Amino acid sequence: MIDCVAVVSGGIDSTTLLYYLVERKQRRPALLTFVYGQKHAREIEYARYHARRLGCGDHLLVDLSLLAPVFASSSLVSADLAVPDRDAASHEAQPSTYVPNRNLIFLTIAAAYAETRGATEVYYGAQRNDLAGYWDTTLDFVERTNALLRLNRVHHIQIRAPFVSLSKADVVRLGFELGVDYDKTWSCFQGDDRACGRCQPCVDRLAAFREMGLADPLPYQK
Amino acid sequence: MIDCVAVVSGGIDSTTLLYYLVERKQRRPALLTFVYGQKHAREIEYARYHARRLGCGDHLLVDLSLLAPVFASSSLVSADLAVPDRDAASHEAQPSTYVPNRNLIFLTIAAAYAETRGATEVYYGAQRNDLAGYWDTTLDFVERTNALLRLNRVHHIQIRAPFVSLSKADVVRLGFELGVDYDKTWSCFQGDDRACGRCQPCVDRLAAFREMGLADPLPYQK
Repeated sequence: MIDCVAVVSGGIDSTTLLYYLVERKQRRPALLTFVYGQKHAREIEYARYHARRLGCGDHLLVDLSLLAPVFASSSLVSADLAVPDRDAASHEAQPSTYVPNRNLIFLTIAAAYAETRGATEVYYGAQRNDLAGYWDTTLDFVERTNALLRLNRVHHIQIRAPFVSLSKADVVRLGFELGVDYDKTWSCFQGDDRACGRCQPCVDRLAAFREMGLADPLPYQK
Repeated sequence: MIDCVAVVSGGIDSTTLLYYLVERKQRRPALLTFVYGQKHAREIEYARYHARRLGCGDHLLVDLSLLAPVFASSSLVSADLAVPDRDAASHEAQPSTYVPNRNLIFLTIAAAYAETRGATEVYYGAQRNDLAGYWDTTLDFVERTNALLRLNRVHHIQIRAPFVSLSKADVVRLGFELGVDYDKTWSCFQGDDRACGRCQPCVDRLAAFREMGLADPLPYQK
């Protein structure tokens, strides 16, 4: 029996969230992982790996690649748009890597899945460092989504983002306590074999490990 | 150039909405039609027909059939659950035909598409008679969805439901004024050649035509 739904991508935040739920909170989540034409699809294999390692056999992969025309304005999806280095992206209200409404689409599908599975909570890994560029990782976002879902007359599903006030360094600290093997997570927005070290999530990830005085176990291009 | 996005299903409400937008308001919508494993997939051909008739060449079919496991609790999707006759369905807060979060999933994808296409409005065909069983066709639902979407820092997308206060009879009246050929719309939840005349949308549809003193041009089983 599952007792909640968790959205996991294979990145640092949602992987740590998964260990937090299973190892610390003894929850039994049904897992959802979304494919949506992202260039860094390698993270999906890592999501599968951690699900297996934690004994979460209830893992559904949802392939939304056909939404590529819907997401075509994002450099994370479109083959015609290059993913920018961090310097170009970090001063924008909405960087080109922003995928329109991505989190809300994932969460509304996850909430539907929770209804179908008889669960009442949906967990996702939003953390504080993402607030800079993205409107769909904030506490406001979670609260307004929950205000909307409360209109459901029968099934009361709540979105939970337990890391929403944590920095990425806080998340990594927690993950080390919980035994997360971070060489099996992926953050880089580029699709290359080694992480680029220059895009926004690479820069954030490296800074989080540095702040913790730890080495990032991932291979980088330089 | 399109100037808004409209979600059309081939049913009475969204078909009338399409004629209202194009013929009365001279709008140029990009159309979205969703396939999601519904038993009454015939309506999709009707959605295509009306798009062609009105010269709306910008029509994207989004096939979400792979969400069947997410929607499996609905008798509209699951092969294991029978669609109930109206008598069984009409006294429930949420009939078995309710598809978890369906409208919100469609609208959040449509809002993403509007962002990508540079439009600011998404139209859908919610009308008053659907309020009985469904929480996702109400004015409250539209307002809270818009409150959520307002958090987007760059793109301000609004959901519009111009028929939300109209009865189904009002919608049919408007459609007759606008020349909608209702023999090319489909409401029945069953997948048969002729409409069953007994499920909730059949009963509502027949009542709407009767209230208008008009004959429904669709073939029925009896």
